Amino acid sequence: MTFCSTCGHQTVKKIPAGDDHLRDVCEACGAIHYQNPKVIVGTLPVYNDKVLLCRRAIDPRYGFWTLPAGFLELGESTWQGAQRETREEAGAIVHEGHLYGVFDLPYISQVYMFYLAEVADGSYQAGTESLEVAWFEEADIPWDELAFTVIGEMLRRYFDDRKREIFSTYHCVMQPRQEAWRKNS
Amino acid sequence: MTFCSTCGHQTVKKIPAGDDHLRDVCEACGAIHYQNPKVIVGTLPVYNDKVLLCRRAIDPRYGFWTLPAGFLELGESTWQGAQRETREEAGAIVHEGHLYGVFDLPYISQVYMFYLAEVADGSYQAGTESLEVAWFEEADIPWDELAFTVIGEMLRRYFDDRKREIFSTYHCVMQPRQEAWRKNS
Repeated sequence: MTFCSTCGHQTVKKIPAGDDHLRDVCEACGAIHYQNPKVIVGTLPVYNDKVLLCRRAIDPRYGFWTLPAGFLELGESTWQGAQRETREEAGAIVHEGHLYGVFDLPYISQVYMFYLAEVADGSYQAGTESLEVAWFEEADIPWDELAFTVIGEMLRRYFDDRKREIFSTYHCVMQPRQEAWRKNS
Repeated sequence: MTFCSTCGHQTVKKIPAGDDHLRDVCEACGAIHYQNPKVIVGTLPVYNDKVLLCRRAIDPRYGFWTLPAGFLELGESTWQGAQRETREEAGAIVHEGHLYGVFDLPYISQVYMFYLAEVADGSYQAGTESLEVAWFEEADIPWDELAFTVIGEMLRRYFDDRKREIFSTYHCVMQPRQEAWRKNS
């Protein structure tokens, strides 16, 4: 941030009185502009014994496989957002989802929330952000071509849980070293 | 938003190409300014059979009781943020927390994440945002003087869980009608 979004004056970085974090502050109108982490919502869409993955048509990680997910929008619940992203990216209608994976990625100020959800009739269609969409059995998951470490973590957890037939909510703090690809992209 | 935080030009509200949400867009420099929901992190601090509550010294809901919680900051995990808020508002050191309550409040674009956590030695001290801080047994919880519906929901869940001795992660979508006080404040 360089200019105040309220009055257009140039902002400065300073710690406001009573605060302990650097903020973008406007000394003309007094506005303090807070920046906060973002929530990414998505699904782990299943049908019979298969998982639906999307191959990314956008950066970062163009061409790599991912679960349908994206930024939570104002005014929607995390489940509504997860359903929307699944419809937009994978053309799939999911129902009966439950909050399944919560991942902290503090090094990029993101919180991921994945729902485990059934695809209504197994049908799908690649959206504009996907090169292709496909069902995968466990044995066919392209582990070395997954877009983000968090996707692999969620999928591994799911296949483990399936063996135990327990699908409780999983919470994990990811470490930056796990996202080694970032250094090269 | 009225002015572009990148270049200082006036922004307009429009749906960018390939998008389906109204955004603040700068037609001078092309910047699209997204707004997204915020994450509130906090704890349900326990010690022996008691719960630590804070009486708010700030609006909204000045004078009402709450759990220590606040906005997640950039670069911190939800647990780190929950620990920080508990230290700042209640002067209490919590450890061994686990993600206990996730609440969607889509009508105010917030996601609450509470950790159930032990207070190290039961000690506390009211921070600048708290009029007072105190330990409560279940029978003494000031149910009619709680600041937010989500606080009552979390506390009720905890006392139910304590009877069953199962403390799994709870997810709930709150309804705006439950926050009746908002209409009068």
